[in-house]
Amino acid sequence: MDHARLRKDATDIFAAGVASVDPRPMVRDALKPEEGRLTLAAGGRPLSWDLGRFDRILVLGYGKAGARMARGAEEVLGKRLSGGVVAVKAGHAEPCDRVRILEAAHPVPDETSVRAARAVMEAARGADERTLVLVLVSGGGSAILCAPYDRDGRTLSLADKAAVTRELLACGADIREINAVRRHLSAVKGGRLAEILAPASVVSLILSDVVGDELASIASGPTVPDPSTWADALGIIRRFGIEKKIPAAAADLLRDGAAGLLPDTPKPGDGIFRSVANIVLGSNRRAAMAAAARARQLGYRTLYLGSRITGEAREIARAYLGMALDCAADGTPRSRPACLIAGGETTVTLRGTGTGGRNQEMALSFLAGLSDAEGRLAQRVCFLSAGTDGNDGPTDAAGAFADTGLLEAARGAGLKPRDYLAANDSYPFFDRIGGLLRTGPTNTNVCDLQVVLVR
Amino acid sequence: MDHARLRKDATDIFAAGVASVDPRPMVRDALKPEEGRLTLAAGGRPLSWDLGRFDRILVLGYGKAGARMARGAEEVLGKRLSGGVVAVKAGHAEPCDRVRILEAAHPVPDETSVRAARAVMEAARGADERTLVLVLVSGGGSAILCAPYDRDGRTLSLADKAAVTRELLACGADIREINAVRRHLSAVKGGRLAEILAPASVVSLILSDVVGDELASIASGPTVPDPSTWADALGIIRRFGIEKKIPAAAADLLRDGAAGLLPDTPKPGDGIFRSVANIVLGSNRRAAMAAAARARQLGYRTLYLGSRITGEAREIARAYLGMALDCAADGTPRSRPACLIAGGETTVTLRGTGTGGRNQEMALSFLAGLSDAEGRLAQRVCFLSAGTDGNDGPTDAAGAFADTGLLEAARGAGLKPRDYLAANDSYPFFDRIGGLLRTGPTNTNVCDLQVVLVR
Repeated sequence: MDHARLRKDATDIFAAGVASVDPRPMVRDALKPEEGRLTLAAGGRPLSWDLGRFDRILVLGYGKAGARMARGAEEVLGKRLSGGVVAVKAGHAEPCDRVRILEAAHPVPDETSVRAARAVMEAARGADERTLVLVLVSGGGSAILCAPYDRDGRTLSLADKAAVTRELLACGADIREINAVRRHLSAVKGGRLAEILAPASVVSLILSDVVGDELASIASGPTVPDPSTWADALGIIRRFGIEKKIPAAAADLLRDGAAGLLPDTPKPGDGIFRSVANIVLGSNRRAAMAAAARARQLGYRTLYLGSRITGEAREIARAYLGMALDCAADGTPRSRPACLIAGGETTVTLRGTGTGGRNQEMALSFLAGLSDAEGRLAQRVCFLSAGTDGNDGPTDAAGAFADTGLLEAARGAGLKPRDYLAANDSYPFFDRIGGLLRTGPTNTNVCDLQVVLVR
Repeated sequence: MDHARLRKDATDIFAAGVASVDPRPMVRDALKPEEGRLTLAAGGRPLSWDLGRFDRILVLGYGKAGARMARGAEEVLGKRLSGGVVAVKAGHAEPCDRVRILEAAHPVPDETSVRAARAVMEAARGADERTLVLVLVSGGGSAILCAPYDRDGRTLSLADKAAVTRELLACGADIREINAVRRHLSAVKGGRLAEILAPASVVSLILSDVVGDELASIASGPTVPDPSTWADALGIIRRFGIEKKIPAAAADLLRDGAAGLLPDTPKPGDGIFRSVANIVLGSNRRAAMAAAARARQLGYRTLYLGSRITGEAREIARAYLGMALDCAADGTPRSRPACLIAGGETTVTLRGTGTGGRNQEMALSFLAGLSDAEGRLAQRVCFLSAGTDGNDGPTDAAGAFADTGLLEAARGAGLKPRDYLAANDSYPFFDRIGGLLRTGPTNTNVCDLQVVLVR
């Protein structure tokens, strides 16, 4: 089996996926200003706005890819853009012609995040019914755009808000519960930005780094109806018995909200959302489908398994291995040359003190399983798991490969996959045998992709 | 969503899978005695034997389903059968007309297993070139047919052989390594039975309870070429540093074998296998494909993912959940009404002291994940995981369902899926809310099936 060729194909397929969610061309190619209308082509039925109805087009944004998305918008809309403010992670700024780029802290918000949020909200307040607002949303937006409650005569400090998050994490609340509470302690999230923007026309273009692309979760949904209520938020705090542990200002706010003394976040069906469109432009699904298209081009019989694969990395690897061996042995779910593509975001439960990332760990577990499989089947298989942001864990690799060539290399070097797996030490393992995929930062992020090739 | 209907469909689909590997009709329907020939139709190109070449048809067998397989053979071959010996697990005997059924201990072999193996070998010695031998192989055969080395002037006791297995398990050898050693300490496994039967014509009809259906692993391959050598076996013992820990008689045997003083087990390509056919008649794949056919009949767009799914049950559940939600949200890998079918055998790492089995644990983990998913997607999904033998762990259930109806029932009863999952306590959880599938013993076993329905 020509392992080098299979690895090259897998890399090529992965790269096609990443290219499809490159923020700048992705935004540029989605927007078509033609014959007095702005049309948005993004998967489903195209949306279209009569530009004659608007005096100006405003750009707002938050998230790591914000600057590149803004440049894509500038590229296609040029002078039609009247300006705007986009908040990005510190170090991710790029010069834009018409849009002001602000840097803010990530992943832990600080005063720069609060300043960024204030600037975005200030610009939002200037929008009226003759404003078309492009909101550019990408991963990290939740920390980058941070505005503790500051309205209805009530204020919360950044420290108060952070303390609530800490208590929620400590008591074992799940991410849905944490987000329901946090949206109610924010002046901008859970649809509050849409509230400020009304009655402007709003289109949020979203690059999703959240498995499942649930709108209310991506950057905590500033332009998205909030499915949860003040009462839900207070109920969560009470259920976990932390009402007295969180700062008094936050507990007061939740109680008063639940008592009907404060307006709730905007809800599904609220009138303000009639002129708001939230469009997931870039997603794991888009990347995986572009990868699948490339695989078909390369001649592989390709099956896209979905973009919601989560779970413990080393165990999920075994599901992929099982399917790969079935392709090799029996031609199901695809006959050779076969390609399976999937995506999502797995987790790693740390057992050892090694260096690696969830993608490298998955590849290492796949490799360990490959060593148990029948040789005639195993040698046909090549596996790649990698992060679309080019960064897997605290390493300089995007991910790693697994095939019998690497297994032989490991044997030759005296490295046992299971020993390194037990130590969560995938990076040095693959580094020594040349099994890493290094892409450098890709400036986008739609979680991870897995590519299985069976020749 | 009509949960009762989806559960009924899932049960129906699972049952169709199990029915396809019911030992008696499976053997009966595979064999066609017509116009002086015996033809075997089992998937690939049919095999056929000229009955005029044979004076007698002998039945040998080992495994839990042996008696039922023998009855299937009797049903179709009747008086053509000249007799035989089949060893089954104690309590699994059924009256046969022409075949003697012997009971033996399982899963821990004892003197009854040794007696059973001797009877089978004795009958085998009577076969000659004018004998056609049907060997009926099913799960448990490895323990049921137990013959410690007793040839070439050397003998091993049952206790010696058992001690070697214990040491191999204790030192962390994997199942391939354990089997390679064990085959060399046996008088009947690793192709030794085929050696005894030569020059008879042999057809082994196999009901596989081993993921991947590797022939040398099913019942330790009495009629299958042994891919491993004396030197391999000795190498394994030495690599794990247990040469001095195992009984001296076993170590002597391995050393003498590796030194060329004892004939090795028959190898691939050996002449004796020219008249031996090993046919996997019943397998997880067969059951899964029959289940898939039934799902299509019921109107589901069906994808068979393969039969080699292994890994930690609760994590593999998340891969299935991800695919189910993708079907519900995006129509991939199948659009609604969708059905995904897979099989294999997962494992459970015990953390708690509860009662359950790998299938119930998988369903419970699926249910816990379902509670985090968007309601509009979750409510479309029904999951079933169950053992094809009708027995999941030390319980009276075959497996369990997961859907939002059961989630509501659990909420109503104050049961939290994650608490029960943490305690490995899936059985009482599902028992209380009516989420178990109970089929009773099915008298067959091809590992587990998973059925995902998305309506």
